[in-house]
Amino acid sequence: MGFQGIPGHEFVGEVIESPDRTWIGKRVVGEINAACGRCWDCQCGRQNHCPHRSVLGILNRNGSFAERLSLPLKNLHLVPDKLSDEAAVFTEPLAAAFRILEQCRIKKRDRVILLGDGKLGLLIAQVLKTRCRLLVLTKHQERKTLLEKWGIESYPTSKRKALSQSGNIGIDATGKPRGFAFAQQLVQPLGTIILKTTCAGRARYPLTPIVINECTVIGSRCGPFRPALQALKDGEIDLSSFISEIYPLKKGRAAFKRAGQKGTLKVLLKP
Amino acid sequence: MGFQGIPGHEFVGEVIESPDRTWIGKRVVGEINAACGRCWDCQCGRQNHCPHRSVLGILNRNGSFAERLSLPLKNLHLVPDKLSDEAAVFTEPLAAAFRILEQCRIKKRDRVILLGDGKLGLLIAQVLKTRCRLLVLTKHQERKTLLEKWGIESYPTSKRKALSQSGNIGIDATGKPRGFAFAQQLVQPLGTIILKTTCAGRARYPLTPIVINECTVIGSRCGPFRPALQALKDGEIDLSSFISEIYPLKKGRAAFKRAGQKGTLKVLLKP
Repeated sequence: MGFQGIPGHEFVGEVIESPDRTWIGKRVVGEINAACGRCWDCQCGRQNHCPHRSVLGILNRNGSFAERLSLPLKNLHLVPDKLSDEAAVFTEPLAAAFRILEQCRIKKRDRVILLGDGKLGLLIAQVLKTRCRLLVLTKHQERKTLLEKWGIESYPTSKRKALSQSGNIGIDATGKPRGFAFAQQLVQPLGTIILKTTCAGRARYPLTPIVINECTVIGSRCGPFRPALQALKDGEIDLSSFISEIYPLKKGRAAFKRAGQKGTLKVLLKP
Repeated sequence: MGFQGIPGHEFVGEVIESPDRTWIGKRVVGEINAACGRCWDCQCGRQNHCPHRSVLGILNRNGSFAERLSLPLKNLHLVPDKLSDEAAVFTEPLAAAFRILEQCRIKKRDRVILLGDGKLGLLIAQVLKTRCRLLVLTKHQERKTLLEKWGIESYPTSKRKALSQSGNIGIDATGKPRGFAFAQQLVQPLGTIILKTTCAGRARYPLTPIVINECTVIGSRCGPFRPALQALKDGEIDLSSFISEIYPLKKGRAAFKRAGQKGTLKVLLKP
């Protein structure tokens, strides 16, 4: 988005200032889209698409790699006491995984092929594992091991040709343009592809198979916090292998370096 | 599709040979996908996506730029007596226009922006004009005049910026990769884009706005012949300006040359 400012949009924090004093001292997570609340989109309930919105750490609003941040009260959600900070900080990306269930009616019998075994992919996998017949394409052996632990079927991306047109729903959470091309190979005619990947710049994708096979592509972004918090509270999501390391905020540069290393999952900053 | 053979998939003809003699002498149009009828897709009613299908003049089956062609009986539809050959030959592309109504529930209040004022675009425009609030983006003054005659609102493509995010449904029937990019600009967040364009080769498209705006993209191809024939029979579709010229089959080369000229709509071949 060409944003210049403090990045970071996944956080857990304590309210230290608020127009409503009952919030002060509460532990919260926050939805990242701060809508104007007055425009037509907001009035129709499409606050996440408000054209006047700011987005935490992404658009016109400083983010969470900081001691303090500000968000509208209506964006906040209380964190249940039994949830640790280290779990609650996953509410935002987990909500993005739950967004898929709002956009696409996924049925138990559906064969869903998930591309991407990164952080978002692994959260989506856990959300979907009891809700459909899920297959995750993996690049890394250690992710395959994780998926096995969760009882989720996986298959190496490199051998995906054997799975050609074997799913009726595909999810691209690779973060790379080729993920969408792969999804087109894996999904049956009249199937659906959920697109989670946003690539910066002018990344371009082939689309002709979408027309020939009459597939549906659904762009998918931020999701609902409530089911995400509930799933975390209910212990549905195993996060034990997600946090690679925790750094103090002042070692932010080292944290970024660590996050960029191969095989790293989540790196947290603590102010 | 890299097809080598006789092209042509829009036709009207007379049955001269058939296992069922009642068809002989009948004037017919024909669906172009010849499915195997035995595979899982066929059994599920997805004959148009049968992986073993041949497609008239497109894939493993010689087409209609010829004196004779063959198609399975189940692909044929009788042409009502009152329909001229010159009207009936539009059944196939008109069916492709009606396909949109099968795939996307278009409501009267919907603001539909149609990109493409070519042959398919003008058929789609006539199918949609009473079914939604339609706006067609035009490149050519003479197409604007046609649309005006049909009571359809139009706007010059070159000034489309003023229409940014003004439709909730966009249809790309431009036949060019940029049509899809334009549609992304014109459709609101959470809107739908129907994609009719198939470009040969490795044409590539930007997709990030689809994710950010959580739009739905639906690939759309061949459609149902019945409503198309009915609409033609009912005189709902004005074809008076569609046929630029009719050539005898043996002047096929000249016909192709004519069809490639700017401003030409349909050129017919008569064996």
